[in-house]
Amino acid sequence: MSVIDELTSELARLPGIGRKTAMRLTYHLLRQPHSQSLRLAEALVSLTERVRSCERCQNFTEAPLCNLCSDPRRDATTLCVVEEAADIASVERAGEFRGLYHVLGGRLSPLDGVGPDDLAIGALLARIEPEGVGEVILATNPSLEGEATALYVQRQLASLDIRITRIARGLPVGGDLEYADGVTIAQALSARRDMT
Amino acid sequence: MSVIDELTSELARLPGIGRKTAMRLTYHLLRQPHSQSLRLAEALVSLTERVRSCERCQNFTEAPLCNLCSDPRRDATTLCVVEEAADIASVERAGEFRGLYHVLGGRLSPLDGVGPDDLAIGALLARIEPEGVGEVILATNPSLEGEATALYVQRQLASLDIRITRIARGLPVGGDLEYADGVTIAQALSARRDMT
Repeated sequence: MSVIDELTSELARLPGIGRKTAMRLTYHLLRQPHSQSLRLAEALVSLTERVRSCERCQNFTEAPLCNLCSDPRRDATTLCVVEEAADIASVERAGEFRGLYHVLGGRLSPLDGVGPDDLAIGALLARIEPEGVGEVILATNPSLEGEATALYVQRQLASLDIRITRIARGLPVGGDLEYADGVTIAQALSARRDMT
Repeated sequence: MSVIDELTSELARLPGIGRKTAMRLTYHLLRQPHSQSLRLAEALVSLTERVRSCERCQNFTEAPLCNLCSDPRRDATTLCVVEEAADIASVERAGEFRGLYHVLGGRLSPLDGVGPDDLAIGALLARIEPEGVGEVILATNPSLEGEATALYVQRQLASLDIRITRIARGLPVGGDLEYADGVTIAQALSARRDMT
């Protein structure tokens, strides 16, 4: 296999990149200075060598603690529980949350053989008291598995004297009632609020 | 800058990959075994180290001559002239052409400062007689610059006793008259053929 085919195959393994796009990217890189391909290669190697999990919340980090856990300005009494470390970036982009995170490392999915022991639920329980957590926000995805996971975690935490909340489901801002699915509309109706 | 940001930035430099897609790809790679990132990195390094230009036609190759120029079954009497080495893959995919290629390395574009001396036109002229070329097919793109380039090359070759042809322009197969632009329809009409 030629180097061009090899790189094309590797690029085509990435999600959302088909064989044709991969080939276009390869030819693009061939037209660029070598330094661009080498910088990309270096970043990939660094990723595997330097990125690890935060010892406290399982976020991606290059230090023992991630930049959120080691930031004294974050409110340590509120924990936002997410499925994947990538979800932290999404919540952070919203710029609304000032607490800390806890990454479960997946969601309950019996069909894929993912049970409670495969998720960092024990580690979550162990954080509540020592860190003085007062509220846990369950921010798993609003999918079937995400809901089941949130429910399971909620039950594990139920005996503790803390507030347990779930992120709201409803119509996405900027969305269109016409194109929303029935389940979402039903949720948006049942979770309606008084306008004051 | 963190490694995650670095890789995201490098991926976002690729054409058609925005910041958001780049971030998604980075997080995807973080979830995969390290070996996938390392194979991709290796392919990138190999690309810069091993791919060079064919001495005869300027196609991408890892040997002095590309696999087409070194294939004795190809018809050396017909040369297909293309702008970029990447175009060879497109023509080859069509599976119609059995001759050899010549890569110009671009197209005439005064606005971008690309003149005749920047293209491998001299190298093309030098190939005609020694290689016994009988036909040159000008397969530069059907764009303004591509047409100008084809015309220029045709004039350079005009004094030689060879056939010079231009790839046909017309409606793309599977295309729709309703959505075709006027210039293409005009070309398709003026290049109409008798049905036999």
